[in-house]
Amino acid sequence: MDLNSDVGESFGAWHMGDDAAMFAQVTSANIACGFHAGDPSGIARTARAAVAAGVTIGAHVGYRDLAGFGRRFIDYTETELSDEVAYQIGALQALARREGGEVRYVKPHGALYNAIVHHEAQARAVVDAVRSVDPSLALLLLPGSVAGRFARERGLRFVGEAFADRAYTPAGELVSRGQAGSVLTDAEAVSRRMVRFAVDGVIDAIDGTPLRIDAESICLHGDTPGAVTMASAVRRALDEAGAEIRSFA
Amino acid sequence: MDLNSDVGESFGAWHMGDDAAMFAQVTSANIACGFHAGDPSGIARTARAAVAAGVTIGAHVGYRDLAGFGRRFIDYTETELSDEVAYQIGALQALARREGGEVRYVKPHGALYNAIVHHEAQARAVVDAVRSVDPSLALLLLPGSVAGRFARERGLRFVGEAFADRAYTPAGELVSRGQAGSVLTDAEAVSRRMVRFAVDGVIDAIDGTPLRIDAESICLHGDTPGAVTMASAVRRALDEAGAEIRSFA
Amino acid sequence: MDLNSDVGESFGAWHMGDDAAMFAQVTSANIACGFHAGDPSGIARTARAAVAAGVTIGAHVGYRDLAGFGRRFIDYTETELSDEVAYQIGALQALARREGGEVRYVKPHGALYNAIVHHEAQARAVVDAVRSVDPSLALLLLPGSVAGRFARERGLRFVGEAFADRAYTPAGELVSRGQAGSVLTDAEAVSRRMVRFAVDGVIDAIDGTPLRIDAESICLHGDTPGAVTMASAVRRALDEAGAEIRSFA
Amino acid sequence: MDLNSDVGESFGAWHMGDDAAMFAQVTSANIACGFHAGDPSGIARTARAAVAAGVTIGAHVGYRDLAGFGRRFIDYTETELSDEVAYQIGALQALARREGGEVRYVKPHGALYNAIVHHEAQARAVVDAVRSVDPSLALLLLPGSVAGRFARERGLRFVGEAFADRAYTPAGELVSRGQAGSVLTDAEAVSRRMVRFAVDGVIDAIDGTPLRIDAESICLHGDTPGAVTMASAVRRALDEAGAEIRSFA
Repeated sequence: MDLNSDVGESFGAWHMGDDAAMFAQVTSANIACGFHAGDPSGIARTARAAVAAGVTIGAHVGYRDLAGFGRRFIDYTETELSDEVAYQIGALQALARREGGEVRYVKPHGALYNAIVHHEAQARAVVDAVRSVDPSLALLLLPGSVAGRFARERGLRFVGEAFADRAYTPAGELVSRGQAGSVLTDAEAVSRRMVRFAVDGVIDAIDGTPLRIDAESICLHGDTPGAVTMASAVRRALDEAGAEIRSFA
Repeated sequence: MDLNSDVGESFGAWHMGDDAAMFAQVTSANIACGFHAGDPSGIARTARAAVAAGVTIGAHVGYRDLAGFGRRFIDYTETELSDEVAYQIGALQALARREGGEVRYVKPHGALYNAIVHHEAQARAVVDAVRSVDPSLALLLLPGSVAGRFARERGLRFVGEAFADRAYTPAGELVSRGQAGSVLTDAEAVSRRMVRFAVDGVIDAIDGTPLRIDAESICLHGDTPGAVTMASAVRRALDEAGAEIRSFA
Repeated sequence: MDLNSDVGESFGAWHMGDDAAMFAQVTSANIACGFHAGDPSGIARTARAAVAAGVTIGAHVGYRDLAGFGRRFIDYTETELSDEVAYQIGALQALARREGGEVRYVKPHGALYNAIVHHEAQARAVVDAVRSVDPSLALLLLPGSVAGRFARERGLRFVGEAFADRAYTPAGELVSRGQAGSVLTDAEAVSRRMVRFAVDGVIDAIDGTPLRIDAESICLHGDTPGAVTMASAVRRALDEAGAEIRSFA
Repeated sequence: MDLNSDVGESFGAWHMGDDAAMFAQVTSANIACGFHAGDPSGIARTARAAVAAGVTIGAHVGYRDLAGFGRRFIDYTETELSDEVAYQIGALQALARREGGEVRYVKPHGALYNAIVHHEAQARAVVDAVRSVDPSLALLLLPGSVAGRFARERGLRFVGEAFADRAYTPAGELVSRGQAGSVLTDAEAVSRRMVRFAVDGVIDAIDGTPLRIDAESICLHGDTPGAVTMASAVRRALDEAGAEIRSFA
């Protein structure tokens, strides 16, 4: 089982997340590429830390929207979006290589992530961008997404991920953040949930229905002190349960 | 002799320059990388046109200053600037490769170009960035610049360029744009001047002193209709004089 | 009848539109406010030209999206959008006042314009922003839009506009740009069409149905040489028909 | 004596400073205007908090440089800078008025602040911008600065400020941040220092020379937990010493 987390999301004088703490827990680092977050020097430092920690580097590509942190849907044309995604991957590749690292996968961020679960043109744009920059890159995303289907059809490796701290609908989708119970905050309960998932591949939906989740990675958050605590608890529980924690790449 | 020109400097809905006309005249294309000009889709289109025209691709890196078109000095730290230059080169590399091209050299833009003629920290930042991203990249710049010296010391190929439409001081520097006679506008006179330079390596300074200019490339502009006309005239004159026009790369 | 046009849409070194030509034809100037286009010095110059030409100044507010020129829908929260619109109006107010002018109305741009024809939260955001900055400002928009209804309900003056060069559906909406015949290019035909509209208030829809359009202003474009020619033709035809051309403000 | 602090320097998802804590200590709030920091919704929230706390609102204008947080010198033309400063003030005016507040003064930020202590063209640009937007605005800055002289010459009110936590040279300038002892961290010592300044107008330079500082305001920082603690200590000490703490406006 792989553990991934968003890192490198500071920008200029603004700090976000406890990247150092997360590098101690995860095996894959989704590094922001400058469009929703991350300036070149911050990206370089994050890539260096990832290399030092032996953590796999992924490109956390997003919409060009610093003010909205990439969390607002933007109605790009397919070509614009594809070119913007390729641009971001290339920029990270250069910075990662300077630090002795290599970009191994792409995980879209925020509103772009959500969009390509369903939005066909944007899903195609992302898949085509990834494939054209480097066909050996994997795409990390929600299982069952449109982009995942396109990725497989185009011969791109698709890696599904599960969310440690999010509730699922019986249909296997994430419960919307607005809804009661959508975000889980009990580190012990989340740890047990993830151990079960790692061992049996099953997560209970919000109504108790057991769901088989086709995922090779677990997404952990590190943007609040509470999130870091939970991430550490999940990692420890997985280690104690004897789960093999290693990058999918 | 190589002929280079800035291209891909449109941004979003804003158009700049007659790139198509310039691709017919030059052998090297300095493609904007998104920081002073150029959006990913425009960069991609420009790289495609360069590949189609058989023109060598260079990264036209600049300060992060769209509003100022990279023409205002910004007092970066060395690390910040180095990382920003590497970021831009990487982004262009990805977009160029998708089009079947390859970045072969780096030419800084505007205020950054002018800065690294003298500014040691910024010169070092650019040279280190280029070298760390790809040591086979050349650096295209004014001969006699501090960055040129650093490039040679660090084992980076340095290519000097002459300016077709600019007057020189007796010391071999460019006459400042504000001064009378700094910019040459007579296409015939400029063409003769460049033929002499291509054949003998000599350009007359503004006071008539003949200068030996250590350059393998001539910079032509394409940002106004007059500039395109002059560029065509220079190219034709060089062809007629039997000068071998080919990329330095 | 008022004639309005978008102006001040240059940005930094990038030029757009023939503002000088348009100031000779129109009575209301929609000045870009820096978010989709327009830098402070360009805005100041445009406000100065508007004052010199005796043209009424309006705030052409848009999404924060220079790369997309404000033409891509962005899924803002209501509060974010309202604050961004207020920010833009205030910025233009300061620059206009320095030139002896005053902002009299607000006309949203591009995707924001289109959104608030139907999108209730964004329509509310714009109306609330305008009203809270200055309740004497008018809102210039497509008649029959949701934002127009909200404006009237909130006591804000709403001014409808007709589009000189766009075809209408029988329901009074604009024919989508993609469709055949959506954009009219025959300056003579458009001039006759606008004279009839100015005299009788009627425009024929694309299928020939006569439509009564509840508008006090006609939108003219100036972003291409052809557009400027058409704008001049429409103005001349209206003058010759004896239509009173003056600002609605 | 007035106490001022920088606030509203968050941006989008990025948080900076403990504004709520600072509003309890200061009488004047330098609110970021969107160019070096501050997005419209954050600015609006900050203006609301300032009004609620009865704190005077100032425009904390900066270079257009989010990535550099306005801390890098940018070589603007005088016109560009003047228009950008006017734009920022106007934007804040609109957002402040919506909250029932009014902008009373302007305090430049970071590299712009430092530049106009000496740089004549930039100093003139700032003074002209402030004066042309609203001649009743005060300019808050280091005493003895070029901008201060220009302000007085142009009839603009100039308000000097002292820095609580910075060492002074015997000439009355700030000791450069790089130098040993430039930043004071002992809250007790700083509090005593500021009480003496409030009572006698005197601050000891780094070599012990007593300096008469011509200032009506003290600048306090709130960007770190330690800074907030020091600000509270200074305020308490001034209150206990019976200093009258109120806005200069």
